[in-house]
Amino acid sequence: MSKHKQAHNTHRRLLGASPGTLTYVGRAVSFATQIKLIEYNAAEVNISQIPASQQLRDLSFDPQKMYWLNVDGIHEPEVVATVGEVFQLHPLLLEDVMNTHQKPKFEYFDTGKQLFFTFKMIEYNKQTQSLEIEHLNIILAQNCVISFQEERKRDIFEPIIARLLASAGKTRKNGADYLFYALIDLVVDHYFSILDCISEHIERLEEAIINAKEPQAMHQLYGIKREILQMKKVVFPLREMISVLLREEYPMLSDNTSLYMRDVQDHISQIIENIDSYRELVASLMDLHLSQVSNKMNNIMQFLTVISVIFMPLTFIAGIYGMNFDEMPELHWHYGYPAVWGIMLALVLGMAWLFKRKGWL
Amino acid sequence: MSKHKQAHNTHRRLLGASPGTLTYVGRAVSFATQIKLIEYNAAEVNISQIPASQQLRDLSFDPQKMYWLNVDGIHEPEVVATVGEVFQLHPLLLEDVMNTHQKPKFEYFDTGKQLFFTFKMIEYNKQTQSLEIEHLNIILAQNCVISFQEERKRDIFEPIIARLLASAGKTRKNGADYLFYALIDLVVDHYFSILDCISEHIERLEEAIINAKEPQAMHQLYGIKREILQMKKVVFPLREMISVLLREEYPMLSDNTSLYMRDVQDHISQIIENIDSYRELVASLMDLHLSQVSNKMNNIMQFLTVISVIFMPLTFIAGIYGMNFDEMPELHWHYGYPAVWGIMLALVLGMAWLFKRKGWL
Amino acid sequence: MSKHKQAHNTHRRLLGASPGTLTYVGRAVSFATQIKLIEYNAAEVNISQIPASQQLRDLSFDPQKMYWLNVDGIHEPEVVATVGEVFQLHPLLLEDVMNTHQKPKFEYFDTGKQLFFTFKMIEYNKQTQSLEIEHLNIILAQNCVISFQEERKRDIFEPIIARLLASAGKTRKNGADYLFYALIDLVVDHYFSILDCISEHIERLEEAIINAKEPQAMHQLYGIKREILQMKKVVFPLREMISVLLREEYPMLSDNTSLYMRDVQDHISQIIENIDSYRELVASLMDLHLSQVSNKMNNIMQFLTVISVIFMPLTFIAGIYGMNFDEMPELHWHYGYPAVWGIMLALVLGMAWLFKRKGWL
Amino acid sequence: MSKHKQAHNTHRRLLGASPGTLTYVGRAVSFATQIKLIEYNAAEVNISQIPASQQLRDLSFDPQKMYWLNVDGIHEPEVVATVGEVFQLHPLLLEDVMNTHQKPKFEYFDTGKQLFFTFKMIEYNKQTQSLEIEHLNIILAQNCVISFQEERKRDIFEPIIARLLASAGKTRKNGADYLFYALIDLVVDHYFSILDCISEHIERLEEAIINAKEPQAMHQLYGIKREILQMKKVVFPLREMISVLLREEYPMLSDNTSLYMRDVQDHISQIIENIDSYRELVASLMDLHLSQVSNKMNNIMQFLTVISVIFMPLTFIAGIYGMNFDEMPELHWHYGYPAVWGIMLALVLGMAWLFKRKGWL
Amino acid sequence: MSKHKQAHNTHRRLLGASPGTLTYVGRAVSFATQIKLIEYNAAEVNISQIPASQQLRDLSFDPQKMYWLNVDGIHEPEVVATVGEVFQLHPLLLEDVMNTHQKPKFEYFDTGKQLFFTFKMIEYNKQTQSLEIEHLNIILAQNCVISFQEERKRDIFEPIIARLLASAGKTRKNGADYLFYALIDLVVDHYFSILDCISEHIERLEEAIINAKEPQAMHQLYGIKREILQMKKVVFPLREMISVLLREEYPMLSDNTSLYMRDVQDHISQIIENIDSYRELVASLMDLHLSQVSNKMNNIMQFLTVISVIFMPLTFIAGIYGMNFDEMPELHWHYGYPAVWGIMLALVLGMAWLFKRKGWL
Repeated sequence: MSKHKQAHNTHRRLLGASPGTLTYVGRAVSFATQIKLIEYNAAEVNISQIPASQQLRDLSFDPQKMYWLNVDGIHEPEVVATVGEVFQLHPLLLEDVMNTHQKPKFEYFDTGKQLFFTFKMIEYNKQTQSLEIEHLNIILAQNCVISFQEERKRDIFEPIIARLLASAGKTRKNGADYLFYALIDLVVDHYFSILDCISEHIERLEEAIINAKEPQAMHQLYGIKREILQMKKVVFPLREMISVLLREEYPMLSDNTSLYMRDVQDHISQIIENIDSYRELVASLMDLHLSQVSNKMNNIMQFLTVISVIFMPLTFIAGIYGMNFDEMPELHWHYGYPAVWGIMLALVLGMAWLFKRKGWL
Repeated sequence: MSKHKQAHNTHRRLLGASPGTLTYVGRAVSFATQIKLIEYNAAEVNISQIPASQQLRDLSFDPQKMYWLNVDGIHEPEVVATVGEVFQLHPLLLEDVMNTHQKPKFEYFDTGKQLFFTFKMIEYNKQTQSLEIEHLNIILAQNCVISFQEERKRDIFEPIIARLLASAGKTRKNGADYLFYALIDLVVDHYFSILDCISEHIERLEEAIINAKEPQAMHQLYGIKREILQMKKVVFPLREMISVLLREEYPMLSDNTSLYMRDVQDHISQIIENIDSYRELVASLMDLHLSQVSNKMNNIMQFLTVISVIFMPLTFIAGIYGMNFDEMPELHWHYGYPAVWGIMLALVLGMAWLFKRKGWL
Repeated sequence: MSKHKQAHNTHRRLLGASPGTLTYVGRAVSFATQIKLIEYNAAEVNISQIPASQQLRDLSFDPQKMYWLNVDGIHEPEVVATVGEVFQLHPLLLEDVMNTHQKPKFEYFDTGKQLFFTFKMIEYNKQTQSLEIEHLNIILAQNCVISFQEERKRDIFEPIIARLLASAGKTRKNGADYLFYALIDLVVDHYFSILDCISEHIERLEEAIINAKEPQAMHQLYGIKREILQMKKVVFPLREMISVLLREEYPMLSDNTSLYMRDVQDHISQIIENIDSYRELVASLMDLHLSQVSNKMNNIMQFLTVISVIFMPLTFIAGIYGMNFDEMPELHWHYGYPAVWGIMLALVLGMAWLFKRKGWL
Repeated sequence: MSKHKQAHNTHRRLLGASPGTLTYVGRAVSFATQIKLIEYNAAEVNISQIPASQQLRDLSFDPQKMYWLNVDGIHEPEVVATVGEVFQLHPLLLEDVMNTHQKPKFEYFDTGKQLFFTFKMIEYNKQTQSLEIEHLNIILAQNCVISFQEERKRDIFEPIIARLLASAGKTRKNGADYLFYALIDLVVDHYFSILDCISEHIERLEEAIINAKEPQAMHQLYGIKREILQMKKVVFPLREMISVLLREEYPMLSDNTSLYMRDVQDHISQIIENIDSYRELVASLMDLHLSQVSNKMNNIMQFLTVISVIFMPLTFIAGIYGMNFDEMPELHWHYGYPAVWGIMLALVLGMAWLFKRKGWL
Repeated sequence: MSKHKQAHNTHRRLLGASPGTLTYVGRAVSFATQIKLIEYNAAEVNISQIPASQQLRDLSFDPQKMYWLNVDGIHEPEVVATVGEVFQLHPLLLEDVMNTHQKPKFEYFDTGKQLFFTFKMIEYNKQTQSLEIEHLNIILAQNCVISFQEERKRDIFEPIIARLLASAGKTRKNGADYLFYALIDLVVDHYFSILDCISEHIERLEEAIINAKEPQAMHQLYGIKREILQMKKVVFPLREMISVLLREEYPMLSDNTSLYMRDVQDHISQIIENIDSYRELVASLMDLHLSQVSNKMNNIMQFLTVISVIFMPLTFIAGIYGMNFDEMPELHWHYGYPAVWGIMLALVLGMAWLFKRKGWL
């Protein structure tokens, strides 16, 4: 709950503060930023940890190689500023990197010939049973990719590093733009697994609702709806971003990679269609659940009515012969008592027949 | 239920696996792929089974003839890869062929001058009372059509093979593009029969709901809504696909076939309109059903109220004269007992009149 | 009900049958097709019945005159085929003529310089209280209009024939294109009368619902909604059709007639706006009706509660003094019995005051 | 109610009648048409009544002056025809003038260089508590404005006549196009006052609903929704009309007046936004009201339940000791009777505590 | 409540009054207008109060400096008119400045080379718990910004004045266009804080509703919905305004400022997305709340039913043995009384078991 709340306060800096000041906006974190540099080409791969951001200034870059600088942690302004200085990144870009509330956005900076992609990783936290959203930034320059991750605990780009190390496959043979694509593709692939979680949850609920075994169905449906809204916020801007990316030609993006990007675009639109159909399913499930609640109410009322209607006349008859009038001839009949029982039995049978006909029994 | 679930996990390959690897994504199947080659022109038709995919390499193609290669089964990577090799298909195309979760898509591969259509066959399974969706792929090259089907049990293209064999009709006289059209047209025609199923189901429910004879109406309406959502997912992309196909000119597509394609487009938009109107009907039927549930509740409550209101005062009166006070003059009157009965009768008549006026009886 | 069902099965031919085969698709009918030829110009009019379609081949057409061939009945393939042959109509056009499930469509056949309009006539059947939809086809060639009607019983073009005969008015002075317009205009005018029916029905219901006198309101609202959906299906495509017609210039359509066509377009958009506003009204009426059902329930419950709350304590008191304890001093008081009556009266008055304050009485 | 009904029958002429016949379509009226001619320029103003339409033929127009012909009453075909003749108006234009069901429309007649604006005046009738819609037509020719009003009772253009007479202000200094603008502006200004009425009504209802003091809330909300639908029908086409008017250049419309027209357009879009937000408010109020009805039901049920649950056990206990068994030891105990009262008191207290905990008391 | 009402009456002037008259439209206020002139460049800043608007005429402007004239109070026509005269503002612009009901609008006045931005400040009033909307106007001329604020109490531009005074930062180094941007940016930043308020409110409600602790949930949800509607009205037009501003090139707007404006546009679209997702959340919360009200009703009914069903048969049995028949053998049995208690106990246990199975206990 508190996460949602936090998601909006202080959207990028203090009210009235001058634009362009580098400030971290997001959850309070305290770990030290970790910088990793991967240098590769088809022939070799080399990974090095960079202990302090100051050492970045000493690096020299070989135009024959590809470079991938991965920064885990965006909360230290001096680190981000140093990276920005070394790679000549625009101040507005750095501001977006450090603002975890920035919505997904694509920008091209003409001066540095840089493509800037800021978007979100989603992960399902099984413990809190909620979606966790992580702020991601990827910058593509000529032979170099820079990625900024919010968290250090899980390195979501691990599989790609493994692929780079494993063999001289596509990723190593192609340029930095292919790596750029591979990173985006990985994140979009992750979205599918979130969809799977949501889909499974919907199905479990569906079964529970159909069997009327889930008293908290509305809460859960509401929870799914919130997750869908969260995903929508993350995924919808991506569609636009990639179509803008593909609409124009950029020097650092090869035709081949554009083809692969089109594939990513395809997947995003598939995700969006699924999101839409899940929304409709959830709405239908709500209707189904509410109709079942109504049905249950009907059954309760019906039961109460059957019982009341049977016992009220019987109790009335018993009351009649409990009266103390001096002259009540029935009381002195020899078969009076069994006769009353007979009448009562007849009444019960009559009403049972009536309820049968009404379909209440 | 389990089908729906399966429809989303592992959307095309393992998370983080390198793109472009040929992997079958779909239901587990075990039959052997079956390959059929139909060679035809206006003069003659020749059908041959190809027992092993390796034999495809030995085939030679006569440019004066049309060829239709139909592959039943897309789960064996080596078969798909061999077909791809022989006909020079793009790796991304083959990946889509083997991915049963791929959403409908049209692509033109400029290098091979191939049109690629991937879409879905829908069939209504009467036993499970659910829609079954089959992944279909059709590729059109110069004088050759290649079709991939997911299942082997039912050959949905049977009627077209029969037509080819039967007589030297339109299909045989025209080029491969006409065959390409005929296959798509057949699948779209199948959609109409699914619409008929849905329409019939809606009507049956409509009658049942109007006569208030279907206690499970909501479940069934929910089921129809799910089917409509499934159809929408299959049919909506087709509209766009065919309009993209018709927007540009392709060397292997004759003007005449384009005219027929426009006819298919027309049918698809008719299907989409029907889907939309079914959705509205289902929503209205839900309202109608819920209003009937409310009405039933009202009737039950009314009945309970009538009975309670009649017997409560009577029982009260009987209770009064069951009291044991020493001095209750009514008890000793000669006509006390009949008088009480009289009062009670008057009360019942009065209340009956009241309920009559309220319209409750 | 059965009409709706029929509206979808076998949308144009048998599944898998070769496209282009002339088959009648629609309700089973058995009357003989009737063909009427009207030959006119400003100076004279001449109507002749053509008993057998074969005689059409013997006709010769004078380019100085206008011809209107009206065919009542589209179920005989040989008749339709003969007309198609004589006037050189495209096979796809003839297929659409014979398919009563074809949705409204406009097409221009460049080879024959023919405009083809297929659309629907709607009539309100007062007996079955449902809309009846008839398939109509109008073809405009140079100096000639061909119209196909599904039914023979009612000739909806009667008023235009009467106008042609009556005087040398606009219709006779202008070319065949004006007649083409006049036929379409007549059908669109009919739509307004259907709107009137629906509007009247809505108003009657509105009054009944406001006065809470219509227990079957939901059924009727559902019926209206279905009628609105049917009209929508018929009218919506027309808007697009006429705007396509007006977007380009056709040799057989004069500027003057285009101006009149624009008037028709105007009316269609007025009809569509009305349809939309009726849909909203119907939705609001449903809300109103459901709220009244709720109110009625509230009233019933309130009544039951008032009665129960009044009689339960009274019955309890009566029960107390019906107990048989040896020592119950009240029973032996001289004014015990009247005192109990007094207490009961006080209770009733107290509760009446309470209910008054709560606004329940 | 009857007004709404009337609004649709016979939309412009008898079914099947020839187009272009001048017929009045609308409410039956019987007053005589009144024609007023205002002749003005910056220097002088001159108002004259024209008793019979025939006298219009005798008028001569000075190109140095502006003319405003205002016709009150559109039900006399001969008057409208005479005006049309004198000012050379197109027959289709005259047909629209006389058809009160014509939806708002803008047209430019190239032959006569006339701008034709047909739209609606709305007035709130406090007596019937409903909106009254009046058909208005304004034609702008070179130095001349012709206006047709449906009603004679209220002259809505009174303030403008007063302004013309009062001083040589903007209206008199500018051309006829400025007068044309001023008339439209006045009508749009009137719409704002209708919005005020609706807004006030919504607020009154809002307060009543929040305080749960309006049992007829649904009826009133339904009434407002109808009014909003009516306004929408009148105002929505205006937006399009004025944007079409401004898109092209017309000889009789000065740049200055176009600027003012843009202002009117601005107001119309403000009205449309308000209409939309009122619709949402009304929908929310319905939800609020229905939730209150539910709450009331809950309270009633709760009250009934509390009373039943308290008295049922008490009555049962009293019933036990009213039994006539020979051996019921409690009956002979000395403190039996007070003990029963004690048990009953304990029961009541216990249940009161239970209901307190459940929050029902 | 009364604020909403006031928001619509007399939208800009008296009905029928001549357009272009300067009249204040808004809440009645009585303070004196306050005028402040800030003169600055990178080197120095100078703030001066201008006690009477007449003194504005005596000012001389140095083209090497930037000027910011801030007017607090728009209710005095003579002040606004004087400012308009001195800075040569268009009369229509001044009319919009004085009309607090004017919806947000952007205009470019070609004659004076002025950009005119009229929009709204929103502030959350914690006391009345409602949004307060203030009318703002900003005009950008060559080296000069003029701002008009509705209120004098709070000066919302205070932080920017402070920044100007504090140091020779960006705002002072850049031209008047940057100041223009900074003012707009500040207002948009304020919107985020309103979003935070709404978001917090939604979350508090969410928690209360999930725990079923908020009986007034519907009122509060309705209140939030109204606030969202108000924000929408204020923010939606801004998106269009800024995109119009950025679409064309204006002489007084530097490329650098355009880049910053694009950033503002980005924020506005983020706000709009949030507004949309809040609307959906509120709708879902309503559903959740209504379902809980239903559940509560079900529980109450269930409880009533359980109690009634238990006590009705017991009371009936007690009634039986309270009858006074002469011959009722059970009454004389030695263990008659304990047997009755036994039967009753058995009944209660039986029913308890039944309710257990039904899941009602």
